[in-house]
Amino acid sequence: MSTRHESDSMGTIEVQSDRYWGAQTQRSLGNFDIGRDTFVWGRPMIRALGVLKKAAAQANAELDQLPTDVADLIVQAADEVIAGTLDEHFPLVVFQTGSGTQSNMNSNEVISNRAIELAGGEMGSKKPVHPNDHVNRGQSSNDTFPTAMHIAVVSELNERLYAPVTDLRDVLAAKAAEFEDVIMVGRTHLQDATPIRLGQVIGSWVAQIDFALDGVRAADARARSLAIGGTAVGTGLNAHPKFGALTAAKITDETGLDFQQADNLFAALSAHDSLVEVSGSLRVLAGALMKIANDVRWYASGPRNGIGELLIPENEPGSSIMPGKVNPTQCEALTMVATRVFGNDVTVGFAGSQGNFQLNVYKPVMAHAVLESIRLIADGCRSFNVHCAVGIEPNRAKIDANLSSNLMVVTALNRHIGYDKAAAMAKKAHKQGITLREAALASGDLTAEEFDAWVVPADMTHPSA
Amino acid sequence: MSTRHESDSMGTIEVQSDRYWGAQTQRSLGNFDIGRDTFVWGRPMIRALGVLKKAAAQANAELDQLPTDVADLIVQAADEVIAGTLDEHFPLVVFQTGSGTQSNMNSNEVISNRAIELAGGEMGSKKPVHPNDHVNRGQSSNDTFPTAMHIAVVSELNERLYAPVTDLRDVLAAKAAEFEDVIMVGRTHLQDATPIRLGQVIGSWVAQIDFALDGVRAADARARSLAIGGTAVGTGLNAHPKFGALTAAKITDETGLDFQQADNLFAALSAHDSLVEVSGSLRVLAGALMKIANDVRWYASGPRNGIGELLIPENEPGSSIMPGKVNPTQCEALTMVATRVFGNDVTVGFAGSQGNFQLNVYKPVMAHAVLESIRLIADGCRSFNVHCAVGIEPNRAKIDANLSSNLMVVTALNRHIGYDKAAAMAKKAHKQGITLREAALASGDLTAEEFDAWVVPADMTHPSA
Amino acid sequence: MSTRHESDSMGTIEVQSDRYWGAQTQRSLGNFDIGRDTFVWGRPMIRALGVLKKAAAQANAELDQLPTDVADLIVQAADEVIAGTLDEHFPLVVFQTGSGTQSNMNSNEVISNRAIELAGGEMGSKKPVHPNDHVNRGQSSNDTFPTAMHIAVVSELNERLYAPVTDLRDVLAAKAAEFEDVIMVGRTHLQDATPIRLGQVIGSWVAQIDFALDGVRAADARARSLAIGGTAVGTGLNAHPKFGALTAAKITDETGLDFQQADNLFAALSAHDSLVEVSGSLRVLAGALMKIANDVRWYASGPRNGIGELLIPENEPGSSIMPGKVNPTQCEALTMVATRVFGNDVTVGFAGSQGNFQLNVYKPVMAHAVLESIRLIADGCRSFNVHCAVGIEPNRAKIDANLSSNLMVVTALNRHIGYDKAAAMAKKAHKQGITLREAALASGDLTAEEFDAWVVPADMTHPSA
Amino acid sequence: MSTRHESDSMGTIEVQSDRYWGAQTQRSLGNFDIGRDTFVWGRPMIRALGVLKKAAAQANAELDQLPTDVADLIVQAADEVIAGTLDEHFPLVVFQTGSGTQSNMNSNEVISNRAIELAGGEMGSKKPVHPNDHVNRGQSSNDTFPTAMHIAVVSELNERLYAPVTDLRDVLAAKAAEFEDVIMVGRTHLQDATPIRLGQVIGSWVAQIDFALDGVRAADARARSLAIGGTAVGTGLNAHPKFGALTAAKITDETGLDFQQADNLFAALSAHDSLVEVSGSLRVLAGALMKIANDVRWYASGPRNGIGELLIPENEPGSSIMPGKVNPTQCEALTMVATRVFGNDVTVGFAGSQGNFQLNVYKPVMAHAVLESIRLIADGCRSFNVHCAVGIEPNRAKIDANLSSNLMVVTALNRHIGYDKAAAMAKKAHKQGITLREAALASGDLTAEEFDAWVVPADMTHPSA
Repeated sequence: MSTRHESDSMGTIEVQSDRYWGAQTQRSLGNFDIGRDTFVWGRPMIRALGVLKKAAAQANAELDQLPTDVADLIVQAADEVIAGTLDEHFPLVVFQTGSGTQSNMNSNEVISNRAIELAGGEMGSKKPVHPNDHVNRGQSSNDTFPTAMHIAVVSELNERLYAPVTDLRDVLAAKAAEFEDVIMVGRTHLQDATPIRLGQVIGSWVAQIDFALDGVRAADARARSLAIGGTAVGTGLNAHPKFGALTAAKITDETGLDFQQADNLFAALSAHDSLVEVSGSLRVLAGALMKIANDVRWYASGPRNGIGELLIPENEPGSSIMPGKVNPTQCEALTMVATRVFGNDVTVGFAGSQGNFQLNVYKPVMAHAVLESIRLIADGCRSFNVHCAVGIEPNRAKIDANLSSNLMVVTALNRHIGYDKAAAMAKKAHKQGITLREAALASGDLTAEEFDAWVVPADMTHPSA
Repeated sequence: MSTRHESDSMGTIEVQSDRYWGAQTQRSLGNFDIGRDTFVWGRPMIRALGVLKKAAAQANAELDQLPTDVADLIVQAADEVIAGTLDEHFPLVVFQTGSGTQSNMNSNEVISNRAIELAGGEMGSKKPVHPNDHVNRGQSSNDTFPTAMHIAVVSELNERLYAPVTDLRDVLAAKAAEFEDVIMVGRTHLQDATPIRLGQVIGSWVAQIDFALDGVRAADARARSLAIGGTAVGTGLNAHPKFGALTAAKITDETGLDFQQADNLFAALSAHDSLVEVSGSLRVLAGALMKIANDVRWYASGPRNGIGELLIPENEPGSSIMPGKVNPTQCEALTMVATRVFGNDVTVGFAGSQGNFQLNVYKPVMAHAVLESIRLIADGCRSFNVHCAVGIEPNRAKIDANLSSNLMVVTALNRHIGYDKAAAMAKKAHKQGITLREAALASGDLTAEEFDAWVVPADMTHPSA
Repeated sequence: MSTRHESDSMGTIEVQSDRYWGAQTQRSLGNFDIGRDTFVWGRPMIRALGVLKKAAAQANAELDQLPTDVADLIVQAADEVIAGTLDEHFPLVVFQTGSGTQSNMNSNEVISNRAIELAGGEMGSKKPVHPNDHVNRGQSSNDTFPTAMHIAVVSELNERLYAPVTDLRDVLAAKAAEFEDVIMVGRTHLQDATPIRLGQVIGSWVAQIDFALDGVRAADARARSLAIGGTAVGTGLNAHPKFGALTAAKITDETGLDFQQADNLFAALSAHDSLVEVSGSLRVLAGALMKIANDVRWYASGPRNGIGELLIPENEPGSSIMPGKVNPTQCEALTMVATRVFGNDVTVGFAGSQGNFQLNVYKPVMAHAVLESIRLIADGCRSFNVHCAVGIEPNRAKIDANLSSNLMVVTALNRHIGYDKAAAMAKKAHKQGITLREAALASGDLTAEEFDAWVVPADMTHPSA
Repeated sequence: MSTRHESDSMGTIEVQSDRYWGAQTQRSLGNFDIGRDTFVWGRPMIRALGVLKKAAAQANAELDQLPTDVADLIVQAADEVIAGTLDEHFPLVVFQTGSGTQSNMNSNEVISNRAIELAGGEMGSKKPVHPNDHVNRGQSSNDTFPTAMHIAVVSELNERLYAPVTDLRDVLAAKAAEFEDVIMVGRTHLQDATPIRLGQVIGSWVAQIDFALDGVRAADARARSLAIGGTAVGTGLNAHPKFGALTAAKITDETGLDFQQADNLFAALSAHDSLVEVSGSLRVLAGALMKIANDVRWYASGPRNGIGELLIPENEPGSSIMPGKVNPTQCEALTMVATRVFGNDVTVGFAGSQGNFQLNVYKPVMAHAVLESIRLIADGCRSFNVHCAVGIEPNRAKIDANLSSNLMVVTALNRHIGYDKAAAMAKKAHKQGITLREAALASGDLTAEEFDAWVVPADMTHPSA
């Protein structure tokens, strides 16, 4: 294996010749062998670092902080980082320095060496493009890494999350409309309650998703503020005064998503409350999905000894021992996703509270957990939608049979005969195993005509009509 | 002890004569003896139930669903509930039925009996004011209890939380302005970093509080939607079609806070995502307060063997064994509050995910945890503000001494001599225990004049000037 | 209101004459007005402080560190603290200094003044019994408060928790035995599965409680190590070398529970991992109770449109609008308790991780949360047991009807005809709405005699017999 | 790409020819595309499934439930699964069916097809080795998957976790011994306190690790109980009565770790409280590591403007903008690990509480989270140990300077002159900026000789000697 020398302020170290990274990345590889299998940074953060470095070079050039040719080389290399062709040159894991310095340097080094290569120079020479003095110009890990975190999170929300969640929402909304006419037993406390329409049931799921998505979008909007321009401690030392705002504008150009420099750069380095808020909004969404998935699987429980009012697609054999068994597996995957998102949210909230002075050094673990939650909810919703929600159908026979035996339609009598008499009637029916109508007529409190006029399940589901 | 008979659909039960409550409250007292010492509902929920019952009676009267005289009696009794004079008649605890039915009935019963008393009737007779048919008219616990939860939470946010948090914010903002000129060592990774102004440090705390408060206010705005009008399962059965919206308007009149009926009443009964969101927003605030309190106590650490750059009020002897010791006790109380809020938030998120079908039966524990978090943050901020924040002063001697020995001012040289030479200089100074200036001049890379012109801590804290 | 002067190292302060507390308690009252309604320390911690102070006085006397008469006075006053007659003199809240110093001083002051009173002296004079020099002799809040925390937690586990949890366990075990013969549908993934006995179902709940209780007892055993003797930082400065061990022995005598001095006193002050462990063990128990309560309410769901295989006591009217409705309210209270315990556990774990150097200053919030969890689980189990578990009965008609329609008894055929043919048979029965027997005979894969011999639900529940 | 037909009870599906998996794995691949990048099962679970399938085949053969030649083929193929050479044939992710059925079938299918290949048969033919009837003989996913979970977790604890944690513990214990003579300022509430030895400080870290490891080992011991033999719902239907116990014995043989069949198989399927307990024990360990890592970085804070009493290795440049900066990066990585473990623990606890009836369908997410926590703690401890702990050295100059200015040595005077006079002395010294000795002599309360005899820092750190 051929190597070359790379150096940093600590000295020289050997790097494999076919790798673009430099000394600091190499040191981190040796120093942080933690969870390597699954905690290497993925596309979202690598792309975000590329976006940032490109924007920064453009801004620096425009502000005469970098020679145009150097900036052009950086932009060219950064474009490759953005495109994903250099992903294998980003080998670092989440559990490194808490500022993400090593990943910031990884991007500086890769872009520097790739730019040098493009310019026909010698990798490792830092000429004509120096990782610190040029690629990292006017920057510090302390402002670049949180900037990249926000770019990654906001991009993932917009490019990965919203579509599948909205797709699921739309499929459910269509189901709600389709099944508006299906009248079924309502259930509260898991006990039979007054009637409801299946359209209303599913509509409530849609409302939960809408509420949660609005919350995520609000958190997204507040996560568009970037730390860039704060450099080491928030003062912006060594950066041109207009660098932060201009870089944010360039990032907006590159991503098509509106970003701006944060109003308070000190807070933007020392706290990541905005990511805690995003995580909290994802938790609301995960909680809503858990409610929905639980409803689906309970309504579909059976086939013969459960509630059995919904039919869901049969996607695979359900049991390795029980032949013919079919299980609500998509619901299970989605609720497992929810428990993971809940755990991630605790990680993010805990880490977010642990800043000291001018820096919070839990940046990588926070970014990773938020990105994982986004990814899992997105994938989970898509899977649940395509393999389950689209196929939800009412089991009308079961729904009707249940509805016809439901005692809680007695509630419609409250306004005619009062709560106390109505209660006695329902209890009698329950105790004697007779129908409510039978119990009602036996009570002498109302006539058969009155009963039939007053107890109409369909009317009970939209009394305002 | 004299008693009277009270009855409900399960039969008759004895209630102490001097208590307004009825049969269902009495049953709950016997059935739910869980955490009695500390989990009896307090003012916010009792008042909210009073507000709701008053508004409902007014709305029902206006919609001809209740005779005016009955409504007036209910309003009169409800006003006493609102005022707090009947608090001792609300003996139930949080851990009861998950719909809060028993507390809803507690309010129905107390108002009914008090109204009966006002009308000169016989308590327990349910005449002329029946707890279900009149006080609970057009309502179900399933919509009243969550309505009361939202009234309580929103009221507490507005009447208890915002003022002390804003007071703390304002005191800190004033401190930030006052200490704008104090230049001190910045610290990242707990290690010396480039200079910063104390005003900037404190200003970042203000920015965190502002961000968090904005988030709480956004969640507050979304918690103004009320379940009222949904009755048993969300269909509004037995309620006048205009009842929900009109009651919400009456609640607005009573509280001076804008409320409206929820768009989707089914979701408003079966999920409380809005409270999960409020709790999440409080967690952001708690996390910010933890950062702030930690910064304060670390800056004030010492008096001789810590960082010692801030002075805080000495409020009490610090130690039962170490004479003369003074501790940052207000910081400790506030960070303990934060850990409690974090725990409450987990409770709320977990409970919020556990709805089934048309009802979430974790209502009481969710309401209680959110209200507790509000109360603790409010009290914690007031205490921290009055007994600590107002007295924060810089220890200028210590600040200056630290600043003068700080090596990280070397960063200002990056743009003049490059990162690598600057690094060598700082490392030399560190290793040899000399000043940066000495190391710089020894390097030959710059002159004394250049050093003095380039390395100016004050300039480093606002380079954009 | 008459007052007297009390003094501490900060000066003099007025205290209400009829209160035994002194200057530091009075200061804390003024400085920490946080969550007063519900966060004043209750019996367990007050009693524990009394136990500790009594034991310390006895040990100091035995080691000639205190005159016998002074020690006797302290013991006498401490006995009153233990008995609970002085509870109103312990007005402080949880959110105070993180070492619990003020509550330690509260106990020193109350015991000192009460002892002075017993001796005919002047309260506030600190003669003949000084709160620091005598009552706190050889102690620091840093070792006394965690010692009291452990005494309180271990006592509550033994005196409050084990009995009601064991009672519930025993009631369930008796039910398991009683219903050993009831064969019902098994359910996995909420879907019908092979048969099981109700005794086995309930037996699995007993097994969960047994496992959890064993875990709590193991954590309890490890929480018997006390910080006493460590004084300020763990070195034991100012305490007689044998003081810690002897005091632990006296505490054992007083409580009847085995305690000993911790092996490492430094860790005993700076970390409370043992309480984190206790909390974690309570979480396992809470999780088990949640599973059990959920099973009970789902099995009891209905009455007509749910699973309906168990009958549970009807304790109160279930609905303020739906007459005759009965809900599984005890299950709801218990699962709400579980969510609270989960939240408390997060608080404890978080707080437990935040120690610095020689002290963890989250002691009060940790102690409070663990004690609350114990209390809630104890009360919740008692309530659930008495008002629900004791009355659980099988609904044999429903159980039999469900069992007879269950297709998953097909599993018994695997070993005779193979999984694939069995699966086809079950699917055919499901699709065509016929019985498994009909589908089996139609397949030609086996005879009616074979089917009847092989498919015997009772045999499927104990094939090993 | 060449394919072959594979079939299950749902029909036929194409599988890539060079893959050993069958129809159900292929379906899962299509149905569960959730978090694919990072949530594919890794070695521990694949190996555990291999171990289980081998042991089951051996047990079945011994009990005459499988022909010897079929069993031998299964064992041979399972050995390859154990060895890891077939890992690429296990493509499924965590978020699948909540029973892990698809991963159980993945192992059945791969072993079946590989065994068929070894026997010279046709893959997909299920002859002579059928995935269900032979490889899964006497098993259900419901008992195999939790069995594999326990094998994986216990194996990882023993083979991955204990060594690096113990190594760290031993290195710290050696440091504690080495620095027993270093006397330094103690710190409580972040404020100067009485002296302590560095050996005592580090010894307290060792004690925390010991305590936590003991807890993990206790949880490990209780996780050795396996669900095997319970099959579908816990009754053991279709399994030989001795199958479970014998398989557990074979697993013990294979792993060298003692396992046994669980006493209650119903609970072993429907709850995973044992894994919740393991996770809780890992949380205690993570909390201890957080305390330790925080202490290290605070003691090492500086280099000039912090506490600076410890020196730690400089492993990499600390800042991309501040030349010469060195940061406590290993501490940061370890505390980030801790926050992740805390989050995972919430996931596990939440998921563990969500079982229904005879099955908990959160198995995969629970197993994954526990395994991830083990992996991260193991890697984190190794990294922290090798790159930081081994190099911890006291900064004796700073330690001595701090100690000499410490006022809290006044505590030694309590027993000679009383707390009140001692307090006045310390306050005077603090206020006037003089030494304690100066203040003491000025007070007239003691002589210079007395002061020098009584105030001896070294004596204060082991007064019992």
